[in-house]
Amino acid sequence: MDSKKKELNKQVRKLMQEFVGQTVNFYNHLHEQSVCSSSKKETMEHLEMQPIPQYGRPVREVYSEMLRDVYGNTILEQHPRSFSCIPSTASLLSWMGDIMTNAYNPHASCQINAPAADLIEKKLIRWMCGLVGYPQRSGGLFVSGGSIANLTALTAARDAKLTYADRSRAVIYVSDQTHASVAKGLHIIGFRKDQIHMVSTDSSFCMDISSLRAAIRNDVESGKKPFAMIASAGTTNTGSVDPMQEIAGLCQEYGMWMHVDGAFGASALLSDQYRKILSGIEYSDSLSWDAHKWLLQTYGCGVVLIRNQSDLVHSFAAHPEYLRDSETSEGSIEFWDLGPELTRPARSLKLWITLQALGKKEMGQIIEHGCVLAGLAERMIRESPGWEIVSPAQFGIVNFRYISDGKMSEDQLDSINQEISREITESGFAQILTTELHEKKVLRMCTINPETTEKDIYETINRLKQSRIIRKTGEDVSFE
Amino acid sequence: MDSKKKELNKQVRKLMQEFVGQTVNFYNHLHEQSVCSSSKKETMEHLEMQPIPQYGRPVREVYSEMLRDVYGNTILEQHPRSFSCIPSTASLLSWMGDIMTNAYNPHASCQINAPAADLIEKKLIRWMCGLVGYPQRSGGLFVSGGSIANLTALTAARDAKLTYADRSRAVIYVSDQTHASVAKGLHIIGFRKDQIHMVSTDSSFCMDISSLRAAIRNDVESGKKPFAMIASAGTTNTGSVDPMQEIAGLCQEYGMWMHVDGAFGASALLSDQYRKILSGIEYSDSLSWDAHKWLLQTYGCGVVLIRNQSDLVHSFAAHPEYLRDSETSEGSIEFWDLGPELTRPARSLKLWITLQALGKKEMGQIIEHGCVLAGLAERMIRESPGWEIVSPAQFGIVNFRYISDGKMSEDQLDSINQEISREITESGFAQILTTELHEKKVLRMCTINPETTEKDIYETINRLKQSRIIRKTGEDVSFE
Repeated sequence: MDSKKKELNKQVRKLMQEFVGQTVNFYNHLHEQSVCSSSKKETMEHLEMQPIPQYGRPVREVYSEMLRDVYGNTILEQHPRSFSCIPSTASLLSWMGDIMTNAYNPHASCQINAPAADLIEKKLIRWMCGLVGYPQRSGGLFVSGGSIANLTALTAARDAKLTYADRSRAVIYVSDQTHASVAKGLHIIGFRKDQIHMVSTDSSFCMDISSLRAAIRNDVESGKKPFAMIASAGTTNTGSVDPMQEIAGLCQEYGMWMHVDGAFGASALLSDQYRKILSGIEYSDSLSWDAHKWLLQTYGCGVVLIRNQSDLVHSFAAHPEYLRDSETSEGSIEFWDLGPELTRPARSLKLWITLQALGKKEMGQIIEHGCVLAGLAERMIRESPGWEIVSPAQFGIVNFRYISDGKMSEDQLDSINQEISREITESGFAQILTTELHEKKVLRMCTINPETTEKDIYETINRLKQSRIIRKTGEDVSFE
Repeated sequence: MDSKKKELNKQVRKLMQEFVGQTVNFYNHLHEQSVCSSSKKETMEHLEMQPIPQYGRPVREVYSEMLRDVYGNTILEQHPRSFSCIPSTASLLSWMGDIMTNAYNPHASCQINAPAADLIEKKLIRWMCGLVGYPQRSGGLFVSGGSIANLTALTAARDAKLTYADRSRAVIYVSDQTHASVAKGLHIIGFRKDQIHMVSTDSSFCMDISSLRAAIRNDVESGKKPFAMIASAGTTNTGSVDPMQEIAGLCQEYGMWMHVDGAFGASALLSDQYRKILSGIEYSDSLSWDAHKWLLQTYGCGVVLIRNQSDLVHSFAAHPEYLRDSETSEGSIEFWDLGPELTRPARSLKLWITLQALGKKEMGQIIEHGCVLAGLAERMIRESPGWEIVSPAQFGIVNFRYISDGKMSEDQLDSINQEISREITESGFAQILTTELHEKKVLRMCTINPETTEKDIYETINRLKQSRIIRKTGEDVSFE
């Protein structure tokens, strides 16, 4: 190694040791940070001007620029008062796993390349399949996230249930609350939009079983072939869980594949208290489950599980000549045989580290903490005149809106609630975005960050109630 | 934050600062390490016994176990004498990017969540499209690797070129050297095996254009619809580059989509000396390009580029209600509109850091260094009696075999060369695996690691020539 390279490595060591200290400090004081600081125009202009240089720049200069202009210019999804989307619950233990895994950079596609990483991924998959209640023949693999997990499972479903000839008359059932990645995945694997039958949900945002039953019967009568059913275990909008027992019954009756999108909610399987909400999940044929949602992982840590591992092998196994020496034995099943990727990072190791250091019980308590906080937010809203709950606390998600004296038009309410969201988000104190439920614009809070406190919830709801637009509306009303 | 959590964070800081020092030291002394140490039976048994505990374990204990049993139990793909597969060229600068990116964990799917990360990804995409020679309307995004890049591009190709009705008679052309992920991707997006027409390659392992032309003509005459053509820019087996000018001509003639799988070879666009080998790539409609192959990145850093960004939007855009607040403006195009993933890590930042700190020129020199070393290996083999070159050095890959006195059967030669591979790999000095070329088992070296020296090549080839099986064969022969 030449001296220039040695000097560079020395600098990387110094900078990264400094950065580790700084990051831990940053996490220790997240509460005091602003959730979203709007990016400065000059910063963005400076970045826009920065070319890929012909000759390298001092690494410390690059480091400082990244820290200041790029990483400092991000919404903090891991902030205890980031309540939008599914916020990040990323733990420093997951980050520790990232640092170690990326240092060694194992090629986690086959047993020979990284035998221990391979074993740990298999152990985690077995453990997760066990939590679901899948039989011994089940399996799965780690993927980048729910979208690829859904895509992988749906491909296996298609190949297991349909002949080529049947594909064009096949029907897949989703609800109006199913995550958009399912429709995207179905498009990618070749289905037309009109083959996706969107079933309405009831007042709890759960798939309406009688509508579903009628839809299937109707489709069968008109010569179509119902083949797959997507149940959501924790929808993005409301945390609602579709009635999986009934869905499983229908799937059995019609020979359909039951896929559960549990990207968000499957983590509740770790809580003795909440896992019963997921009852029926054990009858599913496949499941998507994101560890980067509620299991404290940084992004890129999703899992697809499947009742019969052979269904993944059937869809994804390939044995090119240049990999022959890397197969454990003839006919061995490697991770590259179970999904769309060949080269893949060892995504499971950080979850293993987190589970080893925290234990299952604490992970379960973290799930419960998130559910309790959403319940607290719900109670506060219910006790507030001029506000209504649109969807009660489910799996750490609650939806509500300001309705004033109940005399305003839906349009007016929509724009007031949008403005309430804008104000608190722009303040940097908390991030709360809106979604739409049964055509109403609502405020949505997802309270799953383990660092979020009761005080965070109190202060946030109180600030919502103090929104300028509400005070202004109040004044307007009193002027009349 | 409670005191227990603070104490945990303190320990993570201490361990990770220690680990950073240790990792830099590890990289500084890679040459002295064994490339592959076979994993100890007891280590694997110990890991196999380790449960997911109910209660957490001391983080230092977990750390030490991971270091010793898991990370220490991996083939070092980044070793300067790892010559198999496409070895990892991962730089500590990429690792620095991993550490920083994962600490902040930006949600890199849309501009609002991480404006600076979004801008940098767009700048890199523009720069890479510029290197290819794509027009202003081009675009793309970072994905986990070549398999997903191919899948993404092929989906766009299908949707741009075929009606639903045409799909069942569509034909895609690949060569017998095309990467297996293309066929896998085509299977996922709904094509039958018999719709993939595998064209033979010439003696240089490049797609045979006259066979291709004949195949297309024949398919058109029999009522099929040729719609996509996969050209390889740097095949995995030999580094060969398909004749892209001619392929582009045929694509134009028949209205076909030209996809280039440049996962490995596209990086040569950074070398003024070698980029001309890729001439014709500018006519393609899409391109896969892995930065984790030859651009010094750790795994999970691939790119898909496309001539018309609107083709990705057409296939992948979705606008669910729960993302409405995160769209920059109505109709804005976010990264989640360009590919299969919604939530995604900020994969581009580490490449940006690497390019800023090294500069384009040095990256080009690294490409050239890899090509020169393969050329050196080729010369050494050509000068060695009893050995033959099966595929000359191309893009840092050379294939050769021991042929003894030329009187042995092909079966004997196959097993001798397999044994030569096994011996050197098991010795830990270097990793060289076999592949199959035109039905011969050959030894394959990919020499792209920038830390690999001429001395590494000399010593490795000399060790191959000293293989026990060769010495033994020599003795057997002399006994006759």
